[in-house]
Amino acid sequence: MNLDGDVWRRVSMGEGMTPIVSYNGNVFLKMDFMMPTLSFKDRGAATLVSHMKAIGVKKCVQDSSGNAGVAVAAYCARSGIACEIYVPEGTSPNKIAMIEGFGAKAVVVPGTRDHCAEVCRSKVKEEGAYYANHVYNPYFYEGTKAYIYETFEQLKRIPRHIFIELGNGTLFIGAVLALEHLMRSGVIDEFPQLIAVQSENCAPFYETEEQGSSSLVEVTPKPTLAEGIAIGKPARADEVLDMIRRHNVKVITAPEDRILPCREEMSKRGFYVEHTTAAALAAYYRYCEKFGPTEDALLSLCGAGLKSEH
Amino acid sequence: MNLDGDVWRRVSMGEGMTPIVSYNGNVFLKMDFMMPTLSFKDRGAATLVSHMKAIGVKKCVQDSSGNAGVAVAAYCARSGIACEIYVPEGTSPNKIAMIEGFGAKAVVVPGTRDHCAEVCRSKVKEEGAYYANHVYNPYFYEGTKAYIYETFEQLKRIPRHIFIELGNGTLFIGAVLALEHLMRSGVIDEFPQLIAVQSENCAPFYETEEQGSSSLVEVTPKPTLAEGIAIGKPARADEVLDMIRRHNVKVITAPEDRILPCREEMSKRGFYVEHTTAAALAAYYRYCEKFGPTEDALLSLCGAGLKSEH
Repeated sequence: MNLDGDVWRRVSMGEGMTPIVSYNGNVFLKMDFMMPTLSFKDRGAATLVSHMKAIGVKKCVQDSSGNAGVAVAAYCARSGIACEIYVPEGTSPNKIAMIEGFGAKAVVVPGTRDHCAEVCRSKVKEEGAYYANHVYNPYFYEGTKAYIYETFEQLKRIPRHIFIELGNGTLFIGAVLALEHLMRSGVIDEFPQLIAVQSENCAPFYETEEQGSSSLVEVTPKPTLAEGIAIGKPARADEVLDMIRRHNVKVITAPEDRILPCREEMSKRGFYVEHTTAAALAAYYRYCEKFGPTEDALLSLCGAGLKSEH
Repeated sequence: MNLDGDVWRRVSMGEGMTPIVSYNGNVFLKMDFMMPTLSFKDRGAATLVSHMKAIGVKKCVQDSSGNAGVAVAAYCARSGIACEIYVPEGTSPNKIAMIEGFGAKAVVVPGTRDHCAEVCRSKVKEEGAYYANHVYNPYFYEGTKAYIYETFEQLKRIPRHIFIELGNGTLFIGAVLALEHLMRSGVIDEFPQLIAVQSENCAPFYETEEQGSSSLVEVTPKPTLAEGIAIGKPARADEVLDMIRRHNVKVITAPEDRILPCREEMSKRGFYVEHTTAAALAAYYRYCEKFGPTEDALLSLCGAGLKSEH
């Protein structure tokens, strides 16, 4: 292992400490697309690839619906690590262009996102490739935890309601781990209300909560514009379910037919975001309809709008 | 005038304080595309639109080769100010998509960038529209000055060589004004070597320097990938020329055939930038060839790579 404590400085591209601005009164947006590869995944990729660099990894594989693949490809490029990214068919051409721009090999796998993950994992098993995956690899969550640490540093408090897009749980797990850390450390004394956002066309955690099932129920994903959270079989389902129940997390779905109107609403106010981000606002409105006006809320602008253009 | 000192807080989307990272040894990159609309213009637009909001402007016009129009459209959207953006034909469809996404009207003008500006200015004269233009309006430069202030705050010093893309001079003028301010204030005691980057296909300042002319020489612009600096007749030519001579600024051209290879080099190292940004690296290499190895240099990553995709 490379014990040079400065490795991360040569891997970092300045990700993180994204601003928090008001959208409407005290509904706040964390500008998480203001990142080197234009999505929140950069915090995780920077942390994971710093670790990979420190232990001498020379090449890796990863599967991703797009943003995580883009992020890992970029930080591998920065660090001189070869990589192959498996993406499901239907991934935005712009994301694929970025992956290839970074010098990574983009392998488009026909079928669902879940099938794409299976194809990549068999490559890991057969060839012993390093699996630089944002769901599997715990170092990724060490990065996404910073979402919460930054928020506390910036606001000097944690907002009462935190809306988090939930597919595999890249941000969700990191946020819960960081909030638990702040609680244990006595920095905060109340756990905020977390609201996990799923697509109504692919909502395994929502269905599981509705049915009160002890393990994740099976769903048949339908196409959704919220491609970043279109995960039917999340690999860490049990861990996420456990967190949902431990902290009384509410799970809410974004109505498919409100994603585009919400995206338009946001851009008409100056925020040009990708579809998955617009789904978070759609879910926020549905949450307000169900539970009443919801003040002091934080939403993550997880990806830049240009990433959704075809 | 609205004397509420808090106006800017409702206009800002968190622009500025973009990170500075090492590209190669002590050649540094300021990550200026990590902005709300993915280009360095956001500092200027935020400052200008805050002023417009404070004096009660309800609608405005602007002409731009793309990034400035995108930025002004976004901050006007944030602030509830109607706007029309005139763009020359050939502007990236992604930039036009963003302008329209923000609810502004995009008017595509056939012909050159310079002709586009003329069409917009006649609109200003005939209809008395507020001219929210990054070249004309001095408030824009009050924003772009922050490029230098931030750099000093982050590094606690100013790098010896600062490469700045020069078309109309949006960043160049702001940077010179801010450096003069730091000199006058005794914060720095040496003016850095500024290097103004022009496209070799549209290089009026370079030609003027070569010929030692006292006023800007006329050039016939040829098409260039560096669309952000393709300005044949800069409106503030005399002011820029004066600054060039006052501070012994060197003007250098980016070879057209090296823009794409430089873009590829940067993305292979993790930085996915637009063509105009790649031109700055091409000019950096040409500068090193002419004047020897150039250490302690700062380059601006002025726009995100996805903005250049067609």
